[in-house]
Amino acid sequence: MDPKQFQIETNSDPNPSTDVYHLALDIGGSLAKLVYFTKDDHFVDGEAEISPRKTSDKSKDNSRNHPVIKGRLNFKKFETSKINDCIDFIKTMKLHLGGSQQQENPGSQPISIKATGGGSYKYADLFKERLGIILDKEDEMDCLVAGSNFLLEVVDREAFTYMNDQRQFMQIDQNDLYPYLLVNIGSGVGMIKVEGDGKFERVSGTSIGGGTFWGLGKLLTKCKSFDELLELSYQGNNRAVDMLVGDIYGGMDYAKIGLSSTAIASSFGKAMSDSKEREDYKPEDIARSLLRMISNNIGQISYLNALRFGLKRIFFGGFFIRRHPFTMDTLSVAVNFWSKGEAKAMFLRHEGFLGAVGAFMSSDKHGLKELLVKQETQQIPTKLSFAVDKMHWPLDGELNGEESIECNVYVT
Amino acid sequence: MDPKQFQIETNSDPNPSTDVYHLALDIGGSLAKLVYFTKDDHFVDGEAEISPRKTSDKSKDNSRNHPVIKGRLNFKKFETSKINDCIDFIKTMKLHLGGSQQQENPGSQPISIKATGGGSYKYADLFKERLGIILDKEDEMDCLVAGSNFLLEVVDREAFTYMNDQRQFMQIDQNDLYPYLLVNIGSGVGMIKVEGDGKFERVSGTSIGGGTFWGLGKLLTKCKSFDELLELSYQGNNRAVDMLVGDIYGGMDYAKIGLSSTAIASSFGKAMSDSKEREDYKPEDIARSLLRMISNNIGQISYLNALRFGLKRIFFGGFFIRRHPFTMDTLSVAVNFWSKGEAKAMFLRHEGFLGAVGAFMSSDKHGLKELLVKQETQQIPTKLSFAVDKMHWPLDGELNGEESIECNVYVT
Repeated sequence: MDPKQFQIETNSDPNPSTDVYHLALDIGGSLAKLVYFTKDDHFVDGEAEISPRKTSDKSKDNSRNHPVIKGRLNFKKFETSKINDCIDFIKTMKLHLGGSQQQENPGSQPISIKATGGGSYKYADLFKERLGIILDKEDEMDCLVAGSNFLLEVVDREAFTYMNDQRQFMQIDQNDLYPYLLVNIGSGVGMIKVEGDGKFERVSGTSIGGGTFWGLGKLLTKCKSFDELLELSYQGNNRAVDMLVGDIYGGMDYAKIGLSSTAIASSFGKAMSDSKEREDYKPEDIARSLLRMISNNIGQISYLNALRFGLKRIFFGGFFIRRHPFTMDTLSVAVNFWSKGEAKAMFLRHEGFLGAVGAFMSSDKHGLKELLVKQETQQIPTKLSFAVDKMHWPLDGELNGEESIECNVYVT
Repeated sequence: MDPKQFQIETNSDPNPSTDVYHLALDIGGSLAKLVYFTKDDHFVDGEAEISPRKTSDKSKDNSRNHPVIKGRLNFKKFETSKINDCIDFIKTMKLHLGGSQQQENPGSQPISIKATGGGSYKYADLFKERLGIILDKEDEMDCLVAGSNFLLEVVDREAFTYMNDQRQFMQIDQNDLYPYLLVNIGSGVGMIKVEGDGKFERVSGTSIGGGTFWGLGKLLTKCKSFDELLELSYQGNNRAVDMLVGDIYGGMDYAKIGLSSTAIASSFGKAMSDSKEREDYKPEDIARSLLRMISNNIGQISYLNALRFGLKRIFFGGFFIRRHPFTMDTLSVAVNFWSKGEAKAMFLRHEGFLGAVGAFMSSDKHGLKELLVKQETQQIPTKLSFAVDKMHWPLDGELNGEESIECNVYVT
C-alpha cells in the first residue's frame, strides 16, 4: 500500500510550517553532518510483528497493533567550507521536501529542518535562499548529549574500548550509563558532564583539537586533507621530532618521578635544534608528533575533568578520531596513565554524528507522520515513538563510521 | 685581610673531594643555568654589623659576632646545545677552581660541583674531560623546590602578579607560603605540589612547553632564536590563524555556555582553509597563535591541578615566560578564567634559575668556607648559614632576570 502523505496539526498555529524531521543537520567549524531517515520500500503494513528492543520513548507501551514504518537512519558528512556540496546533496535527494508535494503546493509554508552547530546560524540565509527551508536551531550541547544518550541507550554495541590494538564492544546497561563525561573532539573540544536525559553541564573544553591537528598539519606538510595527514602519521616516528626524557637524561629514565626514557618531555622539542631546517624533517614524523601531542593533551584534560567530578567513563566523540588506531590508543593510554587505571576511555561508532542525531531526535513529531501508511483510526496520531531494533553488525567487519541504522517508527 | 684558603674535613673520608659550592649548575633540555657566588672585595672583617633579614638556616641564631663574607649570587645561562660555551665561561672565570690553588696541587682530589637536570648525567663525562670536575648530581625536583622556597622566603619581592598590564610585587609571609603549586615551564612542564621545605610531590606535567613553542616556531617561521620568536609574537594577531567561536557562529557569541565570539574555538583552525598556503600567513600571527595556544593550555592544566589539591597560588617558573607581558597575561587570564577568580597566577623574578639555586643550596657546606676571613677560633666551623639581606630593587627598573643578589655568609 502506498503511503499517504498528509500534514498533521499538532499545535494551535493556523498554518504551522511543515516540519521535516527525517533530515537533521549539525554544521560545525569544519564539517557539516547530516542524519536522515529513509523508508524501507519493501515494508508491508501488518507485518509489524516486531517488538522493539528499545525505544526512545520509554513511557509508552508499543504493542504490536500499532502501525509501523520500517526504514533506516542514514549518515553523511561534508566539509563546511564546501557547504554548497551539502546543499546540492540535499536537493538531489529531495531530503528537504519531507515527502510532501512541496513543489506542487507553492502556497504552503516553508519547511523547517532541525539544525544545530554554529553553521545553523551562519548559513541560515544560504539554506533559505537555495532550498527555501528554515533552519530550526537547536542548541549544540543539547543535541550532542541527546544524540550520545540515544546512541548509547538504543544502538547495540555503539560503544567500544581500544587497548593494546584490541577493540572491545561494550553493552552498557541503561541504569549504569550515568553519569559520564562526553568529550566531543571537533575543530575544538567540548567536555560535558552528562547525568541523564537532558541533564548535563559543559564543564570544560580546549581549543587544541581537530582543527589544530589539521591546521598545523597543513602548514607543516603538503597534505591536502585531514585523512591524508592521518594516513601519513601511520608511517611516522615521533622520536625524530619530540624531545624524550632520555634525550635530556643521557638515555636514562627519570625513575624517581616515574618517567621512562621514552616518555615525551617536550613535544617538537628536537625541532629546536640548530642543525636542521624544516625540510630536513620527514612529514610523517611531524604528523605523528602532532597527533600524539594533541591526543595526549586531550586525554589528560579529559581525565582531570573526569576526576574532578568523579566520573569513571569518558566517551570520546567527534570526527577527530575516525577509528584511527594510534589516536584511540593514545587517548586510551593517556586516560589509563593519568588515572592509574581508574577511568576508562570509550569510543562511539557514530562518533561525529552525535549532534546531528540529537537534532534529529529533538522533536516528538519527527516529521515521519508523512510517511505513515494510511490507517483507519478515529484518533489522529499526535506522537511518534522512534525505536531501533538491534542491528546485526558483522562482528569482524570494518566500520566506516557511516553505517546506517535500521529502525522502526511507532505511532501511539 | 686576605682570605686564607683551606680545606675543612667534614666527613670521615680520608681524602674528601673538594666540594665547591660557589658554583652550581642546572642543565636542562634547552638551557644550562649557572648560579655562582662572588665575594665582595671591599668587605672588611668586623664591619659585619648587619642583622640578616632572613636566613636559610632558621634554627641558628646569627649574632653580630660571627664573621661574615659579603658577596653576590650571580646568574647566567647558556643554550645546552652550546654546552661548550658554558664550559668555556666556567674555565675563564675559574669558577670550577673554587678558590683553592687547584692548579698548584696536582695531586689533590677532583673538585665536585653540585649539578642538577638531565644534563648533569648527559654531560658528566664532558665536564670531567674539559674541566677535571665531577658533577655531584642532585635530584631535579628537589632542587626546583629548594630553589623556589629559598627565593620566595628569602628574597624580597621575588614574586609578582601580572594582570591588566600591571605588575604587582607580593611579599609573602613565610607562614602563609605553603602549600602552593609550582609550575616549571622549561622545554617541557613540571607541576609540583609544594607543602614545605623538602616536602613536595610532582603531581603532573605536560609535554607542551617551551620546547614546543620554539620547536614549532622554528619549523613555521624563519626565526633564529627563542627571543626572536617571542619578539615577533608582539606584533601578531592570532585571529588570522585561530578559529574563533564567532567564526563558527556567524559572528555571534555562544552565550549559553559562556563563550564570547572572540574566544578561540580551535587553535590554528583557520589554517585548515583551502584557500591559503603557509606562505600566505604572517609569521607574527603564527607566533602569536602558538604562544597563546601553549600558554592557555599550561594555564588550564595548572589550574585543574591546583583545584585538585585545593591550592590557591600557582607560581610559574622556568624560562618560557621571560617576563613577556603577553605570556604572563595569558597565563594569568587562563588561571583567573578557569578558577573563576579563586586561584592566582604568580611569577618569579629568577624564574628559570630555581633548579640552579636549589642545587647551590643543597649542601650546608656551600664550599664558601674557603673564602672565609682568617679567624682565630678553637672551633672549626662545620656549618655555614647563607643569609640574604634585602636588596633594594629599583621600583620601576626593568628586570632582566639575571640580577645578582647581595648576600652574606655566616659561620656558626
